[in-house]
Amino acid sequence: MLYHELVQQVFTKKSYLCVGLDTDITKLPKHLVSSPDAVLTFNKAIIDATKEFCVSYKVNTAFYEALGAEGWEIMQATFDYIPATHLKIADAKRGDIGNTSHQYARAFFEKMNVDAITVAPYMGEDSVRPFLEYEGKWTIVLGLTSNMGSGDFQRLPVNEGGEELYEFVLETVAGWGTPGNLMFVTGATRADAFSRIRQIVPGNFLLVPGVGAQGGSLKDVSEYGMNPDCGLLVNASRAVIYASGKEDFAIEAGKVAKAYAEEMSGYLPLKS
Amino acid sequence: MLYHELVQQVFTKKSYLCVGLDTDITKLPKHLVSSPDAVLTFNKAIIDATKEFCVSYKVNTAFYEALGAEGWEIMQATFDYIPATHLKIADAKRGDIGNTSHQYARAFFEKMNVDAITVAPYMGEDSVRPFLEYEGKWTIVLGLTSNMGSGDFQRLPVNEGGEELYEFVLETVAGWGTPGNLMFVTGATRADAFSRIRQIVPGNFLLVPGVGAQGGSLKDVSEYGMNPDCGLLVNASRAVIYASGKEDFAIEAGKVAKAYAEEMSGYLPLKS
Repeated sequence: MLYHELVQQVFTKKSYLCVGLDTDITKLPKHLVSSPDAVLTFNKAIIDATKEFCVSYKVNTAFYEALGAEGWEIMQATFDYIPATHLKIADAKRGDIGNTSHQYARAFFEKMNVDAITVAPYMGEDSVRPFLEYEGKWTIVLGLTSNMGSGDFQRLPVNEGGEELYEFVLETVAGWGTPGNLMFVTGATRADAFSRIRQIVPGNFLLVPGVGAQGGSLKDVSEYGMNPDCGLLVNASRAVIYASGKEDFAIEAGKVAKAYAEEMSGYLPLKS
Repeated sequence: MLYHELVQQVFTKKSYLCVGLDTDITKLPKHLVSSPDAVLTFNKAIIDATKEFCVSYKVNTAFYEALGAEGWEIMQATFDYIPATHLKIADAKRGDIGNTSHQYARAFFEKMNVDAITVAPYMGEDSVRPFLEYEGKWTIVLGLTSNMGSGDFQRLPVNEGGEELYEFVLETVAGWGTPGNLMFVTGATRADAFSRIRQIVPGNFLLVPGVGAQGGSLKDVSEYGMNPDCGLLVNASRAVIYASGKEDFAIEAGKVAKAYAEEMSGYLPLKS
C-alpha cells in the first residue's frame, strides 16, 4: 500500500483506527471451542464486524507462535482474510544482522504478504535496511513504546545535549527511509511526548498502541500527534476484540470500533 | 538445562562451541532438492556430524519463518532432533510488552521446548521478565552485537559518565536475573570490549556470534571473555554448515566443528 492510498483510506472512512488481532486462545468466548480453528473463526468475525470502521489490522505474531506451526497457518489465513483496502501489519518486532533481517523481510513481505512489519532498532542500520528495500511495503520501527519498561532504556539521556535515546532513534532511523516507507511506534501512554516526536518526525505515520486497555487517551494523542495527512494509526486491541466475552462478541467489537471511528472523525483535519 | 549441567558439558567435551543452524534453503548443497524437507535432512546430517564437538545448537528463526508454516514445522523437528545433552537456543530476538512476551515465552519454552531464547532489550524490564520466570530455561539478552549497525545505538554514551548504552544494558539487565538463567549476546568482532564486559557481568555466560564468516577471532574472545566456569558459548554458523557445498557437506562441517573444539580445548581453564 502506498502513502497516498493510506491517506485516502483515512479521509474516506474518517477513521485512523487499527484493530489489533492479539487473539489469545484462552480468552475466546466460551461458546467457541478452544482450538486454533476457533481463533480463525473469531478473527474473521471480528474483521467482518469492524472493517467498516478501521483502516488497518495489526496481527501480533506472539499469540500465533504460541500455537506452534498451526498458529502460523492461522496467522497466514487471518492476513489473507483482511480486505486489500486495509493496511496489514505484522506486529513482529523483528530485527537481526542484515543477512538475517533479509530472511525476516522475505518471511513477512513475500511469504505472508503483509504490508508492514514492526522492527526493533537496537541492532542498528543494517538490521532495518533489508525491510526498507521492499517497494510498497512499510517498516514500522519502535520509537517510544507504551509499556512500563519503556523508561528503562528509551528515555535515557544520550550524547551530551541530554536528548533521550528514543529521540535519537527517531532522528537517526528517519534518515534511513522516507514517510513513504517508514513509520514509528510511539505509545499513547506518553501523550506529553507527542509534540516533541512531531518536531523530530513531522511527516511519518505513527503507529500508536496503548489506547484502551493500556490507558492512553485518544484525544491527547490526536491533539498532539496529528499532522495535515493525519499521520496516525491508533491501535486498539483488547478494548475491541474482548468487548464482550459472549456470543455477541463480534457485534460488541463492531460497536467499540464504531465509537472509536466516530470520535476520530471529530479530530481529523479538514482536507482541501 | 541448569547452569552446572552446562558447565559440565563444556568441561567434559572440552568445547564451548555452539553450531548455528541458519539454514538457508537457497544455499543447500545441489544434490539436495530445494524443499523444506531438504532443510530438515540437511540439519539432521549437520547435527549428526557435529554433536560430538559442540555443546549447543542455535536455530535462527528467520530462516524458518521465511518458509512459512512449513518452516515452523521444520524448526520444531530440528529442535526435536537435537540431543538433550545440548543447549537448544532459539535465536529469535523477540521482546514486546509483558502480556505479549508471555506469549513468546510460551511459544518457545512450552510449545517448541527450547532451553534458551535470544531477547532484544529495547522495551525494558517487563519485556524481558516473562522469559526469566521459567525454571531451567535461559534468557539471552542482546548486549553488544557483532554487526556494523551495533555502533548506531549500542555504543552511544549514556548518562553523564560516558558509559555506553550496551554497558548500561548489561548492568541493568544483569539485575533482573542470575547467571543461572540469564546470558548475554556479545559479538566477537568487538574483542577489545570483552575485558569491559567481564567487569560488568563476570558470572554470566556470553553467547558470542561473529566468529568465522563475520571475522571475529576465537583466540581473542577466549583470552578476554572467559571466566573460571568458561562462561562462553561461541557460535559459528556459516563457517560450519557451509564448509562444503557438495555431497560431503556433513563430513566437512564435522571437520570444521572438530577444529574449533580442538582450538577451544587449548583455551579452557583447568578445572579442579
